[in-house]
Amino acid sequence: MADTALHDVAGIGNAIVDVLSHENDAFLAKHDLVKGTMALIDADRAQALYGEMGPGIEISGGSAANTIAGLASLGAKTAFIGKVRDDELGKVFAHDVRALGVKFDTAPATEGLPTARCLVMVTPDAQRTMCTFLGASGGLTPADIDEDMIAAAKITYLEGYLWDPPQAKEAFRKAVDIAKGAGRKVALSLSDKFCVDRFRAEFRELVDHGVDIVFANEEELKSLYEVDDFDEGLQHIRGHCEIAALTRSAKGSVVLSGDEVHVVDAAPVSKVVDTTGAGDLYAAGFLYGLTQGRDLHECGRIGGIAAAEVISHIGARPEVALSSLI
Amino acid sequence: MADTALHDVAGIGNAIVDVLSHENDAFLAKHDLVKGTMALIDADRAQALYGEMGPGIEISGGSAANTIAGLASLGAKTAFIGKVRDDELGKVFAHDVRALGVKFDTAPATEGLPTARCLVMVTPDAQRTMCTFLGASGGLTPADIDEDMIAAAKITYLEGYLWDPPQAKEAFRKAVDIAKGAGRKVALSLSDKFCVDRFRAEFRELVDHGVDIVFANEEELKSLYEVDDFDEGLQHIRGHCEIAALTRSAKGSVVLSGDEVHVVDAAPVSKVVDTTGAGDLYAAGFLYGLTQGRDLHECGRIGGIAAAEVISHIGARPEVALSSLI
Repeated sequence: MADTALHDVAGIGNAIVDVLSHENDAFLAKHDLVKGTMALIDADRAQALYGEMGPGIEISGGSAANTIAGLASLGAKTAFIGKVRDDELGKVFAHDVRALGVKFDTAPATEGLPTARCLVMVTPDAQRTMCTFLGASGGLTPADIDEDMIAAAKITYLEGYLWDPPQAKEAFRKAVDIAKGAGRKVALSLSDKFCVDRFRAEFRELVDHGVDIVFANEEELKSLYEVDDFDEGLQHIRGHCEIAALTRSAKGSVVLSGDEVHVVDAAPVSKVVDTTGAGDLYAAGFLYGLTQGRDLHECGRIGGIAAAEVISHIGARPEVALSSLI
Repeated sequence: MADTALHDVAGIGNAIVDVLSHENDAFLAKHDLVKGTMALIDADRAQALYGEMGPGIEISGGSAANTIAGLASLGAKTAFIGKVRDDELGKVFAHDVRALGVKFDTAPATEGLPTARCLVMVTPDAQRTMCTFLGASGGLTPADIDEDMIAAAKITYLEGYLWDPPQAKEAFRKAVDIAKGAGRKVALSLSDKFCVDRFRAEFRELVDHGVDIVFANEEELKSLYEVDDFDEGLQHIRGHCEIAALTRSAKGSVVLSGDEVHVVDAAPVSKVVDTTGAGDLYAAGFLYGLTQGRDLHECGRIGGIAAAEVISHIGARPEVALSSLI
């Protein structure tokens, strides 16, 4: 990777503020929510659901944004592209990402829907179930993609969730083209098994031809290839992209690249409090290792450490400087 | 206390959303902040300080509002009066307090300053230092005091901070008059040693004649009587109000009432994470005990349990149902 890179990683994703509350399984059942997944909801549903949720705490979130925050916390040079509205939550999102040293210059929307929010219900088993109102983040367009920034980032990191808003998908494609044209790497997180369900054919095409590094958890991998078994999915994805980093919660991760295979144990966690952001922070640690020239086992190990930190407390952003943990 | 009471406690206070971040002592020094205290700041200072703070989390706060939230979490019937703006943070505040079952009907301001926020800097020693932009909460007026609600609450609970906005002070006085006229009890938290500094003469007058139950920590007590020693302050306040509940952090609390004196040990805490809300939650536990007819030692003990819960995590509102702890 070129030494002239301005940033280690440029992330593109939905710019979201999370609203977390503690709820029980009966609450999920009452509202037809599937534990551990993300559902898209409209403004009316968001308002109704929020009205029934318990007291919340607001923390900046968004999948790729969490990864970029994690990378910044590890000491990487980072940038983020995503759309907020010029409202209070939009200012919160911008503040929180910039406070970590992330370059974030996407112009906020001055009209239309408010800043996106994700209602995150944390159940007593520390699982999180998410309902996202995309709001202003769905207004990301190709015009928001900073060509020079993408061309000068070692890796451009994209979240699969960007395929939900049609214009954001075009922004995604534009970024991939710029990065590839500049000889840079492209990384993709498959985001969520239902997201993979919605865009399976396109995601398979991306894995085969568009992106270099793919992050998927077990459920996403199985959904991508419509198989019931992790190992079967592993055989499918192997050789279809330069690097596949497959996460398995407490079972750790499996990293594939050409003939290389690494089975990496999970980092120890004294108490799992809230799994929100586990995959996002694994990607942060992994990409940090990669941009610093570490070997793939080490990348997976750093990913595990970053994930372990974020699941030990409420919220999907690190509470301590991750650089102090590695 | 009459069985006809609609609410155990009606609280009146500034309606504030807290923005918490982890900062070090050098940050406090750079910004001339005195650890453990609350400073009032204007909109410009708030914006400048926020811009330099690290990533934050937003949680509903406000001193009396925290106490009412704690009371609701303990199972008490509660109401709250305080002013927000009709903006996003105002909706967050209203949601969070109502989600606990608190009656909250104060009409939001439709113009003027935004909802109040308190920038809370948590240092590695778990102390909190606060800068409050009062915003819309300073717009509380006597017209916002619901006469029937106050007259039908066993105890009306007021925060000393209300003396900062001039109209809120009038609202405070009106509520005291209504409560006294209805034969109810009035409780006051002295809030902060600098707040006591600003209004010492009036607070002494209130303690002597206006209120029945006073909450003060060691610093506030010493400031009230301009003495250097806790015991000296204790001798001053003794007999000047029906009940004085004096908190001393890890040393527990001292409860005075006529000839009665109780020295109550602090509840054990495995790790102190953030002391924000300790005094507010002590008051919640104490008032819960009092409205349920418990003796004064027991009131202090429940106060200690509620305070111990809130200092074991980030934020000034309980994370678990306090009713499960007593």
